[in-house]
Amino acid sequence: MQLDNIRIVLVNTSHPGNIGGVARAMKNMGLRRLYLVEPRQFPDEQAQWRAASAADILEGAVVTASLAEAIDDCQFVVGTSARERRIPWPLLDARQCAARMAVHSAREQVAVLFGREDRGLTNEELKRCNLHLHIPTSADYSSLNLAMAVQVVCYELRMLLDAPALPARDDAQWDAPFASQQNMERFYVHLEETLVDLEFLDPAAPRQLMARLRRLYSRVRLDEMELNILRGILTETRKWVGRARGGGA
Amino acid sequence: MQLDNIRIVLVNTSHPGNIGGVARAMKNMGLRRLYLVEPRQFPDEQAQWRAASAADILEGAVVTASLAEAIDDCQFVVGTSARERRIPWPLLDARQCAARMAVHSAREQVAVLFGREDRGLTNEELKRCNLHLHIPTSADYSSLNLAMAVQVVCYELRMLLDAPALPARDDAQWDAPFASQQNMERFYVHLEETLVDLEFLDPAAPRQLMARLRRLYSRVRLDEMELNILRGILTETRKWVGRARGGGA
Repeated sequence: MQLDNIRIVLVNTSHPGNIGGVARAMKNMGLRRLYLVEPRQFPDEQAQWRAASAADILEGAVVTASLAEAIDDCQFVVGTSARERRIPWPLLDARQCAARMAVHSAREQVAVLFGREDRGLTNEELKRCNLHLHIPTSADYSSLNLAMAVQVVCYELRMLLDAPALPARDDAQWDAPFASQQNMERFYVHLEETLVDLEFLDPAAPRQLMARLRRLYSRVRLDEMELNILRGILTETRKWVGRARGGGA
Repeated sequence: MQLDNIRIVLVNTSHPGNIGGVARAMKNMGLRRLYLVEPRQFPDEQAQWRAASAADILEGAVVTASLAEAIDDCQFVVGTSARERRIPWPLLDARQCAARMAVHSAREQVAVLFGREDRGLTNEELKRCNLHLHIPTSADYSSLNLAMAVQVVCYELRMLLDAPALPARDDAQWDAPFASQQNMERFYVHLEETLVDLEFLDPAAPRQLMARLRRLYSRVRLDEMELNILRGILTETRKWVGRARGGGA
């Protein structure tokens, strides 16, 4: 995937704040090429403010007088629309569409078109697209803010770029090794002895106590450092029990 | 998954516009429960404006004086943060984290915490979380707008809700059946005869012409209606060639 071969094309945007929001969303996800087809108001202070540290994206934006100018050199054009349309068109959700764009971007110029805040893209504009993109929404309120829609599409592209590098496990960057089964078994023996010592556990009527403690610690997956801490506590506990017994005899 | 068991908790939000953007992002994706921990300015006109048709989410928002008040009844708490932290914590990307939230939300109260615009969540706040959530970004500019971050997380939750219902194919809602192989073969015969008729194709030296045409039409996958149109054109063409030959003989 070549993110630099993918351009975001905003058609007839009304609110300059949205253009700024789009610029920031793009830069956050590593996209850089913004095309503005007949924006109502640009450049604009509100756009600058919403762009925050993505002013360079706004400065590099290409303003065109027609959609054709913005996409004529593209080999793959995707149009976003929430509306029902009369002519069925190849349609994918943002995730599947991003995968298709990623493939094309390796060697081709790719454009993603986003329409007007109030009316989206016209049927004529949608017919210029190879593929239509749909972002799933609640039936109660399906009208996404323009910059939000761009954010979702750019995020899906970013996920494709980063996915192989991301840890698939929530503990991939843990700072201590996780306890081995052997050490866990030693811990359970140590724990049980301590509980018997404490007379908290009656070996003649153990009930489910150890089973419950095992379930607890196996669920949490202890690391070696945590295990050492717990065993240190048990060792100290037994010393005190032993002292108490010795002292009391 | 029960979206109504998942709450979005904004901690010390500075800009009321962001609160409005969050409300809209939530409603677009079907979430409804918003908690605001010590917002700097709320309610506020800017929040109303950015919320658009999600005013009901703002009206239903619960404002609290402490984080504890907002999450004390939750069984699963997720914290978002872009910053590197000293204490490693269970960490997943937004997609994997959404899957975990979806599971818990079936029977438990789930909270997702979003921190201050400038500094995120404090270490103390992050330590109250079961899991940390990371949204992948470009290294050049990793600071996501608050409402955008909420949008991405809510979108991932929505995708889990809708995914089974979404067509996995871009032609799932096509309006005509796709052409059978038999009909395609009849078409190629018809096409070849017509091209020979037209003397565009020399049967003695066909070269790669038919192979190229086959590759073209097989790539586009014709539907029956389109096939009928093409065959209609071929039939008419041959009639005219026949007439021309008959007329010229």
